[in-house]
Amino acid sequence: MSSHRFDVLGLGNAIVDVISRTDDDFLAAQGLHKGGMMLIDETRAEALYQAMGPVTIVSGGSAANTVIGTASLGCNAAFIGKLKADEAGTAFAHDIRAAKVDFSTQFAKDGPASGRCLVLVTPDGQRTMNTFLGACQNLSEADVDEDLVKQSAIVYLEGYLWDPPAAKAALAKAAKIARAAGRSVALTLSDCFCVDRYRDEFLGLIRSGAVQILFANESELHSLYQTADFDTAAAQLRGENILGVVTRSEHGSVVITSSEVLAVPAFPVDSVVDTTGAGDLFAAGFLAGLSKNKSLETCARLGALAAAEIIQHIGARPLKDLGQLAAQNGLAI
Amino acid sequence: MSSHRFDVLGLGNAIVDVISRTDDDFLAAQGLHKGGMMLIDETRAEALYQAMGPVTIVSGGSAANTVIGTASLGCNAAFIGKLKADEAGTAFAHDIRAAKVDFSTQFAKDGPASGRCLVLVTPDGQRTMNTFLGACQNLSEADVDEDLVKQSAIVYLEGYLWDPPAAKAALAKAAKIARAAGRSVALTLSDCFCVDRYRDEFLGLIRSGAVQILFANESELHSLYQTADFDTAAAQLRGENILGVVTRSEHGSVVITSSEVLAVPAFPVDSVVDTTGAGDLFAAGFLAGLSKNKSLETCARLGALAAAEIIQHIGARPLKDLGQLAAQNGLAI
Repeated sequence: MSSHRFDVLGLGNAIVDVISRTDDDFLAAQGLHKGGMMLIDETRAEALYQAMGPVTIVSGGSAANTVIGTASLGCNAAFIGKLKADEAGTAFAHDIRAAKVDFSTQFAKDGPASGRCLVLVTPDGQRTMNTFLGACQNLSEADVDEDLVKQSAIVYLEGYLWDPPAAKAALAKAAKIARAAGRSVALTLSDCFCVDRYRDEFLGLIRSGAVQILFANESELHSLYQTADFDTAAAQLRGENILGVVTRSEHGSVVITSSEVLAVPAFPVDSVVDTTGAGDLFAAGFLAGLSKNKSLETCARLGALAAAEIIQHIGARPLKDLGQLAAQNGLAI
Repeated sequence: MSSHRFDVLGLGNAIVDVISRTDDDFLAAQGLHKGGMMLIDETRAEALYQAMGPVTIVSGGSAANTVIGTASLGCNAAFIGKLKADEAGTAFAHDIRAAKVDFSTQFAKDGPASGRCLVLVTPDGQRTMNTFLGACQNLSEADVDEDLVKQSAIVYLEGYLWDPPAAKAALAKAAKIARAAGRSVALTLSDCFCVDRYRDEFLGLIRSGAVQILFANESELHSLYQTADFDTAAAQLRGENILGVVTRSEHGSVVITSSEVLAVPAFPVDSVVDTTGAGDLFAAGFLAGLSKNKSLETCARLGALAAAEIIQHIGARPLKDLGQLAAQNGLAI
């Protein structure tokens, strides 16, 4: 791989998380499907917000969480995502830069407010997400800086980004530049309902060689191959001839390539407070290891460690220095 | 006491907390005095925010935290405080109402943005606060609803409220209505520097009979009586012939009246994450007990329990149902 300025560049929805604790009755009363991500419009966002309990507001966004995790692990990281210059947008920009991630996407001059995700956390630690995309819908090709993509060893695409219609051209541009420059392109499937919406496009990216690294959890993988059986889905993934990384919550992860299937255990935790960002931070640990040429097993262990940190507190951005945490656990990178 | 609609009415600065983890070096570099509350202007607030790490945003405000704590313990609670209808102000109003506190103060139509407090939390769990008062400065007599005050068994005043100049008339009005209606007036000294600024006024309120219940921590009490010796300060407080409640961090609290001095231990905690709101929630527990005619010892134990909950996570609003927590600890009210 030629020299690069950034280890990881993430492209994703720039979202502020508005988090509230709730119970199963509230989810049922609001017709919400536990553990999933639902797209909502501004009217519904306002009504749901009014019905929610007191909130904690933390910057979020799946790929943004991931690149911040890689930065905390010592990587040079960058992010592309669209905001408006309102309070939420200003806070997101502050936070990602304060986390030492390069972020220079221009604020949208008009159109909807910055995107936000109303996250409902139940006592079992599971999160149910309701996303108002807002300004994310204005991400366009013009936001993809060619030099930035060329200078990044791994370009990481968030599946959720297929939802804002105009973003597709931006993604295609980034993937094309990355491939032409000999860079790796990674994709996370984001959510099983998201896979339902874009299954053919995601499979097309994998099979055309546009994507070389795929992150999925079990339910996303099952959705991708339309099967309820893990072994069937894993066998299909193995046949794709890419680097596949499947997370299985407390059962750890499985790394799948054409030549090997490697199971790595989860990192033990005392108690699960909020699983928001578990997958994002697993990807962060894995990509950080990969960018530093660590073994696939070490990459998966780094992912497990970063995920364990994030699920022990509210919010999907790390509160500890992950680089220090990795070193304390014999995983210095 | 005649029948009442609210157990506790709080008057205070309506503030949104912007919380970031930091270290002692950052405090030193920024010239900040650990553990204190400093008033800052908008320019300084912007500069400090830019220098801070990623943030968690949670509604705060000392008296607001307290009344929310009393509501979580099962009290009927109300709050008066001034905001503007910006994102921070809207979030504050949402959160206090979602916590089942009656809040109907009108938003300021013009003037500065909603107030915010930049809170820096060091690894020892201590918080250093930097407050931009903003819209709090527009609290006025017109915001004090006479019926609301008359219908509240205890009216709780926040010492910090002496900082916005126009708020003084509002406080005086509330205290006068409460006394005329035979209600109790409680005051928290808020911060040792705040006591330095308003020592004579606070002593005047105590000695004129305007205030019958006083909350202070050790450093505030020392500041009030300008002594470094706890016993000297406690003896002075005893001579005031009011109900004095002094918190001493991990050493618990001391309840001081003309007839008794009662020491009550702190509630043990596993680890201290963020002490923001410890005093506010102690006052919540104490006032909730008092409003339900519990013994002074039970009031102090309820205070210790509520404070213990708040220091084990980020932010000064309870994440657990304090009423349930009290019942689990044999302190049902």
